[in-house]
Parts: sequence; C-alpha cells; structure tokens
Amino acid sequence: MMDDERVKRLVGQAVTSVIQSTSDPRKDAAMERDKATFSSDNLSEYMNGGKDNIVKRRKLIEIMKTKPWGDKRGRYNMTREEEHVAGLRGAVGIWRLMREENLDIRDAAEMRQLLFLPGGFELHIGMFIPSILSQGTDEQQATWLPLCMNLQLIGTYAQTELGHGTFLRGLETVAVYDPESERFVIHSPTLTSTKWWPGGLGKTCTHAILMARLVTRGVDYGPHAFIVQIRDLSTHLPLPGVEVGDIGPKMGYNGVDNGFLRFDHFLVPRDAMLMRYSSVNKDGTYVPPPAQNSKASYATMVYVRATIVRDAGDFLGRAATIAVRYTAVRRQSSPDQNRRELQILDYENVYEALIPIIAKTFALKFMGKQMMSMYHDFVKARERNDFSALPSLHALSSGLKAFCTDIASEGIEECRRTCGGQGYSVLSGLPTIYTSYVQNVTWEGDNNVMYLQMARYLIKKRQNSVGDMRRGACVKSIVMSPADWENPHAVTTALKHVEDYLADGAIFKLQDLSSGDLVVEGEAWNQSTMDLIQVSKAHCRLVLYNAFSEELALAKLDANTHKESIAILEQILRLFGLICLKESGCELLESAHALPEQHRMVRQQFKLLCRDLRKNAVALVDSFGYEDYLLNSAIGRRDGNIYEALLEAAQSTPFNKTQEGPGWKPVLRDLLHEPASRL
Amino acid sequence: MMDDERVKRLVGQAVTSVIQSTSDPRKDAAMERDKATFSSDNLSEYMNGGKDNIVKRRKLIEIMKTKPWGDKRGRYNMTREEEHVAGLRGAVGIWRLMREENLDIRDAAEMRQLLFLPGGFELHIGMFIPSILSQGTDEQQATWLPLCMNLQLIGTYAQTELGHGTFLRGLETVAVYDPESERFVIHSPTLTSTKWWPGGLGKTCTHAILMARLVTRGVDYGPHAFIVQIRDLSTHLPLPGVEVGDIGPKMGYNGVDNGFLRFDHFLVPRDAMLMRYSSVNKDGTYVPPPAQNSKASYATMVYVRATIVRDAGDFLGRAATIAVRYTAVRRQSSPDQNRRELQILDYENVYEALIPIIAKTFALKFMGKQMMSMYHDFVKARERNDFSALPSLHALSSGLKAFCTDIASEGIEECRRTCGGQGYSVLSGLPTIYTSYVQNVTWEGDNNVMYLQMARYLIKKRQNSVGDMRRGACVKSIVMSPADWENPHAVTTALKHVEDYLADGAIFKLQDLSSGDLVVEGEAWNQSTMDLIQVSKAHCRLVLYNAFSEELALAKLDANTHKESIAILEQILRLFGLICLKESGCELLESAHALPEQHRMVRQQFKLLCRDLRKNAVALVDSFGYEDYLLNSAIGRRDGNIYEALLEAAQSTPFNKTQEGPGWKPVLRDLLHEPASRL
Repeated sequence: MMDDERVKRLVGQAVTSVIQSTSDPRKDAAMERDKATFSSDNLSEYMNGGKDNIVKRRKLIEIMKTKPWGDKRGRYNMTREEEHVAGLRGAVGIWRLMREENLDIRDAAEMRQLLFLPGGFELHIGMFIPSILSQGTDEQQATWLPLCMNLQLIGTYAQTELGHGTFLRGLETVAVYDPESERFVIHSPTLTSTKWWPGGLGKTCTHAILMARLVTRGVDYGPHAFIVQIRDLSTHLPLPGVEVGDIGPKMGYNGVDNGFLRFDHFLVPRDAMLMRYSSVNKDGTYVPPPAQNSKASYATMVYVRATIVRDAGDFLGRAATIAVRYTAVRRQSSPDQNRRELQILDYENVYEALIPIIAKTFALKFMGKQMMSMYHDFVKARERNDFSALPSLHALSSGLKAFCTDIASEGIEECRRTCGGQGYSVLSGLPTIYTSYVQNVTWEGDNNVMYLQMARYLIKKRQNSVGDMRRGACVKSIVMSPADWENPHAVTTALKHVEDYLADGAIFKLQDLSSGDLVVEGEAWNQSTMDLIQVSKAHCRLVLYNAFSEELALAKLDANTHKESIAILEQILRLFGLICLKESGCELLESAHALPEQHRMVRQQFKLLCRDLRKNAVALVDSFGYEDYLLNSAIGRRDGNIYEALLEAAQSTPFNKTQEGPGWKPVLRDLLHEPASRL
Repeated sequence: MMDDERVKRLVGQAVTSVIQSTSDPRKDAAMERDKATFSSDNLSEYMNGGKDNIVKRRKLIEIMKTKPWGDKRGRYNMTREEEHVAGLRGAVGIWRLMREENLDIRDAAEMRQLLFLPGGFELHIGMFIPSILSQGTDEQQATWLPLCMNLQLIGTYAQTELGHGTFLRGLETVAVYDPESERFVIHSPTLTSTKWWPGGLGKTCTHAILMARLVTRGVDYGPHAFIVQIRDLSTHLPLPGVEVGDIGPKMGYNGVDNGFLRFDHFLVPRDAMLMRYSSVNKDGTYVPPPAQNSKASYATMVYVRATIVRDAGDFLGRAATIAVRYTAVRRQSSPDQNRRELQILDYENVYEALIPIIAKTFALKFMGKQMMSMYHDFVKARERNDFSALPSLHALSSGLKAFCTDIASEGIEECRRTCGGQGYSVLSGLPTIYTSYVQNVTWEGDNNVMYLQMARYLIKKRQNSVGDMRRGACVKSIVMSPADWENPHAVTTALKHVEDYLADGAIFKLQDLSSGDLVVEGEAWNQSTMDLIQVSKAHCRLVLYNAFSEELALAKLDANTHKESIAILEQILRLFGLICLKESGCELLESAHALPEQHRMVRQQFKLLCRDLRKNAVALVDSFGYEDYLLNSAIGRRDGNIYEALLEAAQSTPFNKTQEGPGWKPVLRDLLHEPASRL
C-alpha cells in the first residue's frame, strides 16, 4: 500500500507537464465559434428554408430516438444481414409512425434522410410507384396504387441487366405476346439478360416493374414496362419460372438487397403491360405511343437526375462538417515541448483543402435548389402541353448529374483523407458516407455517358460555329490585380471562354475525323469522348457559378437573413469563382485568355480568401444545420468531445464482447499452448 | 404440353436476333491477346525477376489451394469476426507450411501476398521482431527472438496514440523509473495518451513494443521503446493494470484487430527497456544514446517507407489488370440493332483513363526497384560506418512514400470507377483493393507531412538560390512538334524547370513571411505548406521519370528480354513522360517555359500514344503476372468468362442461403400478412 502510494506520487510528478500541455477539444470547439463574424444560426435558417424546418427536424429526431429502429448506437457494427433487417425495420417503422402520428409524406422523407439506412424499400418508393403513376392506365393505377400505399406488396424497378447498363436498347429480356392464351411470355434468353442491380429485388420485393423487349406478331418493338409478380405473397418464395436472389456484397449500401432475376418462359396476363401510352390488343396488334411518350420518359429521367443534383451538396456538406470540426479540435506538432500543439486546420494545406470544399458545398446546394425549380417550371409548362424546355433541361440535368456527383464524391473522399487515421475509422462516419455515396457516379447513367449526352446537345447547338476554331482565343482577360479576379464579369468571361475554346477544339477534331462533316455519333465521336467530356465539364462549371450567383441575389431579398450572413455568402461565391478559374488554369493559359502573370493572380487571390475564411470555417459548417443524430460521427460532434466518443464507441464494439477475442478459441489458444518443442 | 411447346417455339423465334448479337467475353479476351505486338510472357519474366519466380509462385498457389485456409471462395462474404479468424488461420497455416515443407522466408512472404488477408500477425512480423533486432541488446535478442520465431508470443508495435500520430514528440504515455523497486511504472496519464491503431493489439497480441516517454530522476528524456507483456499467456486475459481492446470497424483491413491500450500504474522490470543504444542504470542514471542512434532510427523509417514505395506499383497493377481485362470484354452501345455492341475500352475516355494507369504502374514498379536498391546500397555503406547517404535517402523515401501511394490510391479508385457498376461490387475485387490500400496515404507518416519532410530538405539545399525568384523562368522549351515532347531531354528540362519554378516561389514566400529570412519551420512554414507540398510533388515526378528511364536502360542489357518487350517499355516510358508534362501543364505555362502552342502538343502526343497503345493493353497487364488466385476477381479473370463468374458468385452468397431472405421472418412476414384493414 505504501509502495502503491509512492509509485503514484512518482508518476504524478512525472506527468505534470504532459497534462498541462494537453487541451480539451470542447474548448477548441467553443473558441472556434467565438471567432465567427456571422451568426451560423441565422445562415442556417436561410440554408434550411426557415426556422420551422429546423424545429421540425429536431422534433422528428426526438421521436425517432425513442424508437428501437431509430437507435443509431451499434449502427457501425452490423453484419450485412443485420443491416438489411435494420433497414427494413426502419422503413416500416417510419411508415407506421407516419400513419399513427398523421405525419405527411415530406416528414417521412425527412425521417428517411435522418435515419440514413437504405434498405429494401428504396425503389418501391423511388421508382415502382412513380412508374405506375406515369405509365399505368387509370385502371392499372386504381388496382395497384392502394396495394402499394398499404405495403401489401413491395415493388422494384428491374431494368439493368448483367450485360447491359446505360444502353437501354441493348436489353435482352423478352416479353413475347401469345395471342392464343392472351398472355405475355417473359423469358431470359441469355446469361447476360439476367436482370442485375435492382434495389430490393434480391429478397424484399414481391413485384417488379420489368423492362423487356416487347415482341408481338414477330416484330420486336424494343423495351417496354411490365408489372410482374415474382414472389408468392403468402410464402415469399419465388414463383415457378422465376429465379431471383441477391447479387452479393458491395462497397457500401449493403442494407439494400440489390438483386438478380431470371425468367424461364414465365407467363403473365396481357394487362401486366403498363399501357398508358402504348398497348397490345388481344389479337396482338401493337398500338404505338403518341409522340409525347418519349418525352414523358425523358421527363422521368430528368426528375431522377435533378434529385441527384439536389442531394449532392447534402452529402458533401455532411463530410465537410465532420472534417472541419475534427481538424479544428485535432492538434498536432508544436514548436516546443511545453506549448500546446497546433490545430491542424491552421496548416495551409489543411485549410486550402477544406475551405474550398465548404465553398463547393454551398455552390452545390444552390445549384440543387435552382435545378429543382427549373424542373418544377417545366412541369408547369407541361400542363400547358409545352415541352419546349425539355431538350435543354435533359442535357443540363445529365451533365450536372455527372458534374455534381463527381464534385461530391471527390470532396467526400478528400474530407475523409484530411482526417488522417480517424477518417479511416468507420466511427468517424466518413467511410459510410463515401462508400454509400460514390455509386452516384454510376447509377442513373454512368457519369461519362451523362457528360456525353450534354456534350451532344452543346455541340449540336454550335453547328453554326463550325470551322471557327480559334474564335474563343481572341477574348483576352483585362485583369490587372489579384482582386480583379473576384469580379463576376471577369469570372464568367473566362469560364465562357474556356468552354468555347474546348468546344471549338472538339468540333475541329470531330470534323477532322469525319472528313469535314460534324457528326455526333459513331467512330469519330467515340474517338473524341475525352475531349467532349471536358467541354461539358467546362459548361457545368459556368452553370454552377451562375446558379450560385443568381440564388445569392435571391437570398439578398430575404428580410430575415442578416447582412453578415449575406456578406459571408458573397465571400464564398468569390472564392468559388476563384476555384473555378483555378481548375480551368491550363485552358485559360493554353488559349492565352490569361497571361502567366494574370494566372498567378488567381492563385494569390485564392490563397488570400481561403486564409481569410479560415476563422469562419466551423461556423460555416454549423450553418448547414446537420444534427449530431444525422452525422452519427465520433469525430464530427458539435461539442468537440471527440476522444471520449471514440473510446466509448470502441469499447462497445462487439469485437470486444469477450476479453480474449474471436480468435482465441479457434486459433490462438492451441498455438500459444503448444509445447515449445513443436516443429 | 402442346401449349408449352408452342410457347417455347414462339419465344425461340423471337429471341434469335438477340442471341445472335450477344458475344462471348472469352472470345473477346482471346482476340485482345492476338492483337498484341509483343510476348507478354517474355515481358512478364522480366518484370517478375525471371521465369523461376513465376514457376515458383504457381507452385505455391497449387499448394495453398489444397489448404482450407487457402481457399478464397467465400472470401468476400465474411463478417469482421470471420475475417479476423481467417486471417489468423492463414498466417498460422503459412507458418506451419513453411516449417513442414522447409520453405524459406521469402516463400512465406510470397504466400502472404498471395493470400492477401491481413490479420493479427502483421506487426509481429513487420515491426515487433525488427524492433527487437535493431534496438534490443544481444541479451534481449537472445531472450526474445526464439519466442518470436516459434510464435510462443505475438507482438505488436504501440506508438500512435488517440491524440498523437505523426508527431512523435507529442506522445503522452510515460515510463517512470522507480529506483527503489528497479522497475518502470507505465502509465496513461490522459485520455489522449491511450494507444490507438496498433495492428493486432486489439485481441491477438500478447506483447507490445511500447513507445513511452522515459522519465527518470525527474527528467523527461522523451519517447523510448519498451517491451511489455500485456496479456496472460495461458488465459489470454489482459494483465491487471492493462486495458486493451479493438478500436472498431474500419473502411477496410478489417481482418486486422487494430487496438487501443491503456495502462494504470503498470510495473515492468528495468530490462523491459530496449537498451541497445540508450539505457537506464539500476540507480536511475540515464545513459544517452551515441550519436548514430538517431540515424539508426531514421534508417528503420527509411526502410519501412521504401517498402511502401516498392509495393505501390503492385497494388495499382492489380487494379489495372482487373479494369483493363473487364473493359476489354465488356461491351456497350451499338450504332444499330443487329451489330454487336462496342468494347468499352475502345472509347477514348476509357482508354485515356486506363492506359496512363498502366504506364504509372510500370513507373511505380521501376521506382520501387530502384528505391530498394538505394536502400541496400545505404545498408552496405552503413557497414563501413558511412551514413552520408542517409539525409537525402530519408527525404527521398518520405516524399516518394507520399507521391507513390497517392498515385496508387487515385489510380485504384479510377480503375474501380471505370468498371461502372461492376466495380462497386465486392466480387470485382476492386473495393477490397481500394479500401485496404488507401490507408497507405496515412500510416507510416501522413502523406502531407511526408511531402513536407522532403520539402524541408529540398528548400534547405536551395538556400544559396534565395532571392533568385525568377531563375527558373528563363529556360524556354525549344519543342517544335508534338513528337519532340518524347525527347527525354525535353521532358527532364521541363520537369526540372517546374520544380525550380515552384521552389523559387515557395522560397520567396517563406522569406516574405519572415522578413527576409529563410526559415523552415514555424508560422511562415505552416502558412506555406500547400506551396511546399507542390515543390515535393514536382521533384518526385522528375525522380520517377528518371528512375523509369534508368531501369529501362538496365533492362536493355538483359539477354533474355525480347527487343519487342523493350520497345513496348520504351513507348510506355515516352507516355509516362507525357503524363508528367500534362500534370505539370499549368506550371509550364504559367512560368512561360512552354508556349500555348507547345503545350497543346503535349496533349496531342499524349492522345496519339494512348491510342497506339490501346491494342497492347491486355497484353501489358498480363505482363504484370498477376494470377487469378491472387486477384480473386469475377470481372478480372484472365479467361474473360466474367458473367458466369459473377452469377455463380452471387448465387453462392450467404444472403441467398434461404429463398425468403433474412428479412422475411423478422419483418416482412408480419407486414405482408397483416389484414388489409390495418391502419
């Protein structure tokens, strides 16, 4: 006992200076908030569409926390099977809650966002019901929709096949009409025709909207939609003639049972075909769709892509919030032993990585808002039978889908890496955001294909400028000082110039490869896809800058928003302009729009603004309004108490259920107990 | 029956053209190999250090396939606990095999590579034993090494703490010497002093090399190494005074039980301290290390970083092999219905993404070879007590560790994305390569810190050039045609120019921020870290190009290597030079080394070479020599039979164990059986 006390005294003396030089991360977090030049609460209200939304969200979180399915502890410790079941429980829980508490559909959507646990119902809500609404006859809607809304069946949307993704015309599954029995025969004629990827298809769904080549009277009319039951409703077993299952583990999103599906001469009634636009008569006569059908299906694609554009800033914002909060309280390296180490956010390479990501998040959020309002304007026009905006909207939503998801994916991963080791821990929340988000660059149209759809539109529009190869090169920048690059006119002129320059180059190449003609497909096109993608990216950059600028002009009209909030947004916009210019540096110089010394000024001004915004970094991410419940991140907590959170989360990981660990009994015990005289 | 036959006939007619337009991916794979202009077997022999190595590797694979622990089926379907146990089984299995079959240590290392299942023994082999070898006295080595080699204990290396990573001087764990009991008291005085991250520490290891601040007679001598037993050898329970456990799930590498560790006044004998260089006498007198001790510890760091440089090309090569093989047999989009779709590797954006990654893989492999031979040269010099190469080697290995792992990480992820949806499936092998590799950018020194270590060395070397800000800008390129950029002199002059230009800029800024002095630490340094990182990157680019070039010169001397193999390597080197120039485009233009028209020629020549190399893409990745057993990829199989492999792997996923799936009993049955009159 005496001995113990002596030892403790000895140690106590030895650690005094160590203890003195440590710092409480909670104090760092508070200090950061004191430094801000604006009220993050005020900006948050604007960014979240008003105070009511924030209050409502917090209320929903309080309700969710009381439900077993809403408990996020242990979230990062689930097996695939457990994650899948938890996802189903969450979806059903929200659905029941919505009915019990009389919540509206937007509240349910908000809760699904807050839960952040995708499962087997995603496509039931996101594509099965919308497809029936858009392509089903009134009678079909009356039959199916009540069953859908009551969850008496669960549907998915089965289009992609093992061998065929973005290229719809390549689909191989057939639906052959048999006039004798008045039924369609659904069949998978090849291995590659196996349906592959539909969410919820593996084990959850009882029904599917199936895209299959419609063949009747010996004629192949290409892909059409059919509503097909695939599982028995009482036993959940696949129906005879149906082989269905899960496609295996994925990089993320593992609560969702993405599935495969094969048919062996599987018979469905004639009215399984969704017949709002085209139909097959009893005798097998095909009734083609009216002209606007193709437009209608384009409109659905536009909608889906628009929502992806809308959500990109949301996911990037989550990652930015975690990374900024962590790097603001994480300290590393000190000039001398007894001084506290420095906040890593104070190193130039850290804040020059994260401040631009904050700026991109704002840009994406404003772009998403504008994209959705463009879509809603189109929907209104469509009611007047005015489809004139559709071609440009389709091109824009395609290109932006790619551009915004590329920005978000790369930004999320950069945030994760900036957190060093802790960003590699699932407990940070960052790996889950990345691995579940990054598929956005692939689904709903692979990003490169999306850029090319936009490029096709842009190049066609430019057909008049054919041959005018160096047109873009004449507009020289008149920038004289670094701050001149903050001028919106200087930014837009430069970005427009880059787009023109790249487009002219691509057109020149396309003509060159096609003996003077300007073709937008075939060999010449395929040999220019990299150049064409660059054209679309340049166009998107300008669109994003303009959207930010226009939305900010609207924000200024909002009476509740403080002038300090507006001022910080203006500064962020200026930084975003500089980011766009920096990313276009090579083209600006190569086309001689900017002289070397002008280009150096871009970098100078960029650095100046990043440094100046550093003090507001934490307040800026606070203003996105992500609650701790949503982020579920040990290192992204608002209060900064990251180390306690990490240790507690580690201590409760199931791997620590026994002191000896999972390897002791099966392997280590025998090994370590083996006599030393062994082999 | 009659009905059945009629239906089948109907369908049979309908699907004729669908079946005709599908293609067998195996034929595509064979066709690709026929196109090659060189023998991939011959190049593979060179790249793998001779035919014997390839034969030996295949023999080892055949042995491993017969062992339960060597069976890779089901690899992608394990829980964390299963993966951990499998990792232990594999490590023990290889160890026993090595003894039974009298294999040497290199064969064991090769088998560990081939198994590709990191587990709890990584640091026992990689750091525990090496630390005893380098820092233990002869007596300590005699005591501990036999126990290590016989696996009678399992060790790890515990340095990193919850609050302290790369900054070694910040460590907080203490070892206080108590002269009365002649023991050290190990203690964790703060939450942030908790050891965090050591591999195998969580549940596997019985011992650790512990880095702790040595305090004796009231003086803190900073971090020293101690060998500490943490678990009881018969029960595997933590010893009293020790809290140890797993830190929870990670983005990848989950077979490894990275752990945490805390001490509460834990007593260890005096000789727990590794005393080869410094020591503490019984009375508590500290005996400091001789001057070369610091050099010795630098040498260990150099070695570890050199091995990371060596392995970067290996991991990138695996990803490149999978992506090239997949995109060569994957077909998408066709100009008309009855023509086969195109191989996606034939689109410009696909081959311009993948061919450069092949080139980077070769560059990394040659760099790794040169790095290791530089290290071995140093080891030889050290035997003569010549440490003169150490400072430059330390700087070089630090910068290259960062540069090579950045190239590999980004390249792996680009390969994964280029495979679209299938790259998101774990069955492709790509997510596992990425998620287990990407931590290389963080461990053994965060990449940004590594670039800055190199930058400090580079800037110090340039102190004479202070004030000579625009020196680099005068050397103008004399390139006249695109092909001129293939000239090695043009490449190295340009890359050297970029390094000079960036270094001059950084020096100018450092001086500016420190009133004219050139300081390499403190506030000015921290405010310039982004610029300094760019200097190191530019330097590394030139180093890689030169290494490739020099290693290729050696390859030409090898009598067994065909002239076609050399010719293709020369072409790859030329492409790599163009890649380096392209990546430096902005600086080349901004510094006016290249005029706009000269810079356009870089891009032109880059495109030309990528296009020309396209036909050899599959043969080039074949020449890396990755066996199917290693890659374990459904889409990266050598034979091209990807769709059958995907379907089979999916069918055998445990999620498909029951037809109803894991969600039926706990959730879906009640939901779907509920009466329709519910809520």
